[in-house]
Formats: sequence, C-alpha cells, structure tokens
Amino acid sequence: MQARAGATRRSLLESAACLFHERGFAGTSISDIGNASGLTSGAIYFHFSNKDALARAIVEAHFDTWPVLIERHTGAGAPATVSLVRLSFAVARAFRDDPLVRGGARLWSERYGIDATLPAPFVGWIAAVRALLERAREEGELADRIDPAGAAKSIIHAFFGLHTVSDALSGRAEIENDLADLWRLLLPALLADPGAAEDTLRRALPAVDEVRA
Amino acid sequence: MQARAGATRRSLLESAACLFHERGFAGTSISDIGNASGLTSGAIYFHFSNKDALARAIVEAHFDTWPVLIERHTGAGAPATVSLVRLSFAVARAFRDDPLVRGGARLWSERYGIDATLPAPFVGWIAAVRALLERAREEGELADRIDPAGAAKSIIHAFFGLHTVSDALSGRAEIENDLADLWRLLLPALLADPGAAEDTLRRALPAVDEVRA
Repeated sequence: MQARAGATRRSLLESAACLFHERGFAGTSISDIGNASGLTSGAIYFHFSNKDALARAIVEAHFDTWPVLIERHTGAGAPATVSLVRLSFAVARAFRDDPLVRGGARLWSERYGIDATLPAPFVGWIAAVRALLERAREEGELADRIDPAGAAKSIIHAFFGLHTVSDALSGRAEIENDLADLWRLLLPALLADPGAAEDTLRRALPAVDEVRA
Repeated sequence: MQARAGATRRSLLESAACLFHERGFAGTSISDIGNASGLTSGAIYFHFSNKDALARAIVEAHFDTWPVLIERHTGAGAPATVSLVRLSFAVARAFRDDPLVRGGARLWSERYGIDATLPAPFVGWIAAVRALLERAREEGELADRIDPAGAAKSIIHAFFGLHTVSDALSGRAEIENDLADLWRLLLPALLADPGAAEDTLRRALPAVDEVRA
C-alpha cells in the first residue's frame, strides 16, 4: 500500500506540475488537476491539504532533483572543468524535459502569489560550482586571476538568466545552443589555458558539434 | 491642465509601482493605491480603466526607461567597451532605485496572472549590446574569437540572472559588487587585451574601487 500511495502521489505531482507549468498557479484548479490525473478531489485532498501545499511539494521535488544530478555528474573520473560543463547541460535538459522541474520553476517565479514558504534556490548551486572551481584550481586548470567564490556566483547568475530568458523567448527550444554559446564566452575566461575551451566543451558533451548544427 | 494631468498620472504610477513592488499585483487593490497616492478611486479610474491597465502602464514605463539610458551612456566620447560597462551600472542603479523600474520588474515576473499584454523584453537589449560589441570590434578592442551576436545574448542572459538572483537573495543590496565581479569574469574573455579588464572597469566607473570597499 505504501508503495502504491507513493506512486499515486508522484503521478499526481507530475500531472499537477504540467498544468501549473502551462497555466500557472492561479489558472489551475484542484478540479483541473483531478481531470488531468484521473483522481477525485477527495483523493487529491488525501495527499495535500490544499492547492498551496501541492504547489510547495512540486517546488520541493524540483529542488530535490539537483543533489542527485550534482552527485551523478561531479564524481571522480573527469576533470572538474569538464564536470562543470556536463552538469550544466544535464540541468538544461532537466529544465526542458522534466515536468516537475518545469512546473516547479514556474511556481517558484510566481511565489509571491502562493501561500506557502518555498525553498530558497541559488545558495546550494553557488556552493556546488565553487567546489568544482576549487577542484579545478587544484588540478591546475583554473586561470590565476579567477576567485572561485566570486566566479561561482557570476556563473550561477549567468545560468539562471539563460534559463529565464530562453523560457520567455522560445520555451527553451534553443537552450542547448545558447548554453554552448555561454560556455564559449566563459571558458576562455576561466581556464588557465584559454585555447583549451573548445576541447573542454567537446569532452563534456561529445555531441556538442551536433548541437550547433 | 494637460501638464497637471500628466503630473498626476506620473505620481499615480509611482505610488502604484511602489505598492506592486512590495506586495505584488494580487496583493494590491485600487483602494490601497488610492490611500498611497491620495487620489480617490474615481480619480484613478479617470486615468486607467482597471488595475490590469494600470499594471500595463507601469511595465511600459519600465521598458521606456531603457532607450533613454542607452542613448545617454553609449554616445561618442568613450570606447564601446567602457560604454557597455557604464550602461550596465546605470541599469543596476535604476533597478535598485527607480520605483517604476522596480514595480515594472515585479509585475513582469507576475505577467501570467495579469490580464494585459505586456511588452517583451530582452530582444531590444540584445540588439543594443550587439551594436556596442560590433563597435568594439571596429575599435580593435574585441578578442578575435568573440562573435558579437552570440556574446550579446550571453551577456544579457548573465545580467538578467544577476538582477533576478540579487533581488531574491538580498533585495539587490549587493548588486554593484556582484556586477563588478561579473565584469571581472567577462571582460578578460571579451577583450583583445585581457590585461586591460581592470582598466576598462575603472574608466567606466571611477568609483568602482569604492564599490568593493
């Protein structure tokens, strides 16, 4: 029963996240979510006391995605600079393809209109990027002038903006090309050997040339 | 009478923009705006048919700010790279200090819940930055590998993210320091002579050292 309730909850969260992503928090009712998920309003209220609690659970699921991705893409086996680029593409794909990530992102942008305390983003991301830059320094790949703390903040600023603007202009259709462009600007600034930028990009993403095609 | 109606309209927009910035669109009523502006609801409806129309006028005033700033900071008399950095600090200060810019930004982020077509941002900014980068190339200051079109997009992504994250984390208290950090990362990538980055930053903003203090 436990497992089945967990599966129902997950499927409910995904149905609701799709609707919230398309129509926003105010434009989505519990009855819409019932129609999309095939659950009665009573079954929905068994899991969540109200629409605000459901929205909070989606935003939490969104934020729970990141530690898993960070763990998967930053382990040993690749230089930190390659891991950093690889991680950024994994995040871009999650934003484009994962309903919980997409729904959670829109709900977070509408957070002022939702009666729930939503988790704060950014701080954990800045720490993860800073750790990768510090490892890149130990590995001798970071330019001397780069301060890992300041650069980590600026990188997170740039990526967050990329996601927001890409979503507003094209529904993220161009996100991988735009991300490759951003790395082509940033890597020569970050790397001790600016000429290694294209190689780092290629190692991170074997198919990056096709991304441009 | 024309001038007086114009002044009343402007003061009404500023009062409403302050409230929208603090409380959001849904959290602000016409009666709140009446209390803050000292106008009756009847006087407000003389200028705007409803709250959505008032919100649209604030977002339009927000976007009308930019051509004036671009004109003022990108004229002849300074290299394009210095103009670009100078312009970015003027924008950061407008976001921090101008009630119409602040209110318009929050309303734009809440655009899905407002019944009004709001102007699209970004496209005009990308064009303005691209023109400055093309001028920098003519002036011999742009690194050969930089493509002005792709770099302009990435720069706008980075700045938009900086503004959003700074607003979420600290109400933009650190925006000038964070902006200087972002330029310290980007300028060495953009400039034909990476060593000229600090000099460009200093020429753009004579007081930039104090910003760090």
